[in-house]
Amino acid sequence: MSDLQQTLTRLREALGDAQVLTGDAISQRHYSDWTRHAPTCPAALLLPKDTEQVSVALRICNAAGQPVVPQGGMTGLAGGAVPRASDIALSLDRLRGIEEIDAAAATVTVRAGTTLQEIQQAVADAGYLFPLDLGARGSCQIGGNIATNAGGNAVIRYGMTRDLVLGLEVVLADGRVLNLMNKMIKNNCGYDLKQCFIGSEGTLGVITRAVLKMAPQPGESTTLLCALPDYASAVALLRRLQRNAGTPQAYELMWQDFFRMGVSWLETPVAPMPDHHPLYVLLESSATSEVLEQTLEAAIEAGEVVDAILATSQTQARSLWKIREATGEFPVRLAPLNFDISLPIGQIGDFADLCRQRLDERWPGNHNVYFGHIGDSNLHLTVDCNSLPQPAPVYEIEELVYSAVGELGGAVSAEHGIGLLKREFLHHSVSEEALEAMAGLKRSFDPKGILNPGKIFG
Amino acid sequence: MSDLQQTLTRLREALGDAQVLTGDAISQRHYSDWTRHAPTCPAALLLPKDTEQVSVALRICNAAGQPVVPQGGMTGLAGGAVPRASDIALSLDRLRGIEEIDAAAATVTVRAGTTLQEIQQAVADAGYLFPLDLGARGSCQIGGNIATNAGGNAVIRYGMTRDLVLGLEVVLADGRVLNLMNKMIKNNCGYDLKQCFIGSEGTLGVITRAVLKMAPQPGESTTLLCALPDYASAVALLRRLQRNAGTPQAYELMWQDFFRMGVSWLETPVAPMPDHHPLYVLLESSATSEVLEQTLEAAIEAGEVVDAILATSQTQARSLWKIREATGEFPVRLAPLNFDISLPIGQIGDFADLCRQRLDERWPGNHNVYFGHIGDSNLHLTVDCNSLPQPAPVYEIEELVYSAVGELGGAVSAEHGIGLLKREFLHHSVSEEALEAMAGLKRSFDPKGILNPGKIFG
Repeated sequence: MSDLQQTLTRLREALGDAQVLTGDAISQRHYSDWTRHAPTCPAALLLPKDTEQVSVALRICNAAGQPVVPQGGMTGLAGGAVPRASDIALSLDRLRGIEEIDAAAATVTVRAGTTLQEIQQAVADAGYLFPLDLGARGSCQIGGNIATNAGGNAVIRYGMTRDLVLGLEVVLADGRVLNLMNKMIKNNCGYDLKQCFIGSEGTLGVITRAVLKMAPQPGESTTLLCALPDYASAVALLRRLQRNAGTPQAYELMWQDFFRMGVSWLETPVAPMPDHHPLYVLLESSATSEVLEQTLEAAIEAGEVVDAILATSQTQARSLWKIREATGEFPVRLAPLNFDISLPIGQIGDFADLCRQRLDERWPGNHNVYFGHIGDSNLHLTVDCNSLPQPAPVYEIEELVYSAVGELGGAVSAEHGIGLLKREFLHHSVSEEALEAMAGLKRSFDPKGILNPGKIFG
Repeated sequence: MSDLQQTLTRLREALGDAQVLTGDAISQRHYSDWTRHAPTCPAALLLPKDTEQVSVALRICNAAGQPVVPQGGMTGLAGGAVPRASDIALSLDRLRGIEEIDAAAATVTVRAGTTLQEIQQAVADAGYLFPLDLGARGSCQIGGNIATNAGGNAVIRYGMTRDLVLGLEVVLADGRVLNLMNKMIKNNCGYDLKQCFIGSEGTLGVITRAVLKMAPQPGESTTLLCALPDYASAVALLRRLQRNAGTPQAYELMWQDFFRMGVSWLETPVAPMPDHHPLYVLLESSATSEVLEQTLEAAIEAGEVVDAILATSQTQARSLWKIREATGEFPVRLAPLNFDISLPIGQIGDFADLCRQRLDERWPGNHNVYFGHIGDSNLHLTVDCNSLPQPAPVYEIEELVYSAVGELGGAVSAEHGIGLLKREFLHHSVSEEALEAMAGLKRSFDPKGILNPGKIFG
């Protein structure tokens, strides 16, 4: 029997046959994530039923030096859960469900395989808000959200996933269960170990349970579209809103050509305001209309806003959002090469200019568009590969963009993580010393290197 | 020459004589912190002038296996910066000053030895708020605040120090400088290493610089004192406020005897409302008076509030705060044994009852009082040692309180850290496996164990 066969035999004995699948029994869902990067059938798929089974499975794999790839909802955008043919995939699908809602503590305790939407719904039913929100909400699992420190739509107001996690249960590579469950906001009892696992993309431990913060349900909000004369005005308007009307729930900046493209894709392609302005921001605020109008008037007077529409109905609000949601059409209408990057908020405007200039010099006539959640320093940039010589020089474009990010002190991954796809660009944002320290952390928690090998690091 | 003398010679050569003090040249300020625990003159005091000197100093000490105790403003309350006679103290006093305020990014970049008050002032001058605030603001240094993950007055609204840190520069035990400076809210470039150092009490590295978040300046706030029928009402009122009037800036719960004691210590000891209610909460809200009054009326109707005073002047607000600030008189009027603990918010009422019952059974007639920042799960409990048999059974009381904390799933340190004073009680809140993992982290960053040995762990 090969080593792998021996390991599988041990796993079957320990977990039961129904928890250890191989070959055709493994659904293709486990081959790759939403990037569709290198779809590969793993050597086996484990479907443990509880923390104890996760622990036993890892103990067996660790003893055999068998690589294990933890898997959640497979909605990642960096290849972090994609297996190699020799890896065993460990799915958290069966660790599903909400264990407790503690209304007094404003916490919800969940198993790692619970979908984000299920948590949002249960928390809403209890009269609270679980503020993490992203497009994959129906399929992504909270364990994956935590392991990748997911960002999403509400970061400007509620922070990243990290900011919503109070406690974790983690199984280490050797099967030891680390109980870091905690409901307190204040807890300074030694090192805050849970922080190590949040955003570690399954390379340091397998998250099995979590305690999450619930927020109060927000009131009604108002949608506004504003035209701005320049990038500095986008920052000034944001800070003005925060001072006078509270942090907005959304602050989505669109550069002119993104705006025009979004309008042109509408069912009725008519711009809600003139389309010659350099920048447009779509924002949601829960301030009273009186406060919002006062703030807007002051911004107009200061020259930060040159045109504005305040949605007076849900229908109008929806139609304004349609322009921003052009991104949903990218896979159909473009051959998109998407970038998820972040920069110091004051530098995002300069970065967009610099990046466009370099792309245009190198590939005249190429089509690149910009939009950003600038309140949380996040810029998304898309290059349409259809506008490039074929085959599209993907690596060259990535190197051009990520090295510009590095020059301006930005991050090559804002919210999607590193996984497989950004490993070779990580050095643009992370120093040699920091990479060494990360490797030291990896050795400390996973000395045999069985957990998700090849991810994050080369 | 002894090993120590050789090390001191090397340090003097590398840093200059003025940066290496011994004996009487060392100010007593460096002997102990605000606990006045075991004041001890260290073998030497290093006063490096910049990060490079911190790096050189640690490289020399690490090579010699010489223990080093990092020191900030010496205002800690857990003995974390207290040296032994054989330790070399490394003070960050000379790494002082604000390097940059980036208004667009809403960040402030500071050196570790800068006092909290200096940062608050500079940020206020730039039109923002640096929300970390605590009594020691004039003396404490931001490096120490970060190293201990300080809490303080504004946690309910702005979080712990951890939540305000975007980037760090850290010198590792062997002198390597880890540049983790970062201005972005979203940055998922590998492990978030800075999290390891925040709250590690100088045992994993020496923090030399930091990038901190600035918040918008808040508007005016209103002070309210409410009487409550029971603990559940205190939680219900907090959640009602958060839903309808935003998270309050302060939510200070006082049990009846704390309230009576506070009133009795006023210059004019007259209670602002009848003193027979079980609980009183002093709160600050920045909601409009209209919203606040509506919310209060609904709370009265629901039976959560049985009496209330809304301060109509600054003077009245100050006089209400005087009752809560009785804690400032503790060192003068009591022989206080203070506890800084946290519990799941729903359990704080039960804990106070349980703890009082056990204390009263064991030491009839002892005097113990309770107040808490319950919105962030933090309870402070003080036992007056003057009310106990002498010498006061300090260890027995601590064991009684901390074991009750452990039973209810709480933390033996909420915001002050572990340092020297809580090491032996840490096991009530932290599992054996987690303690082992912490020790592994320590070995990973400081294999020779030179950084602040004996702190946190035994």
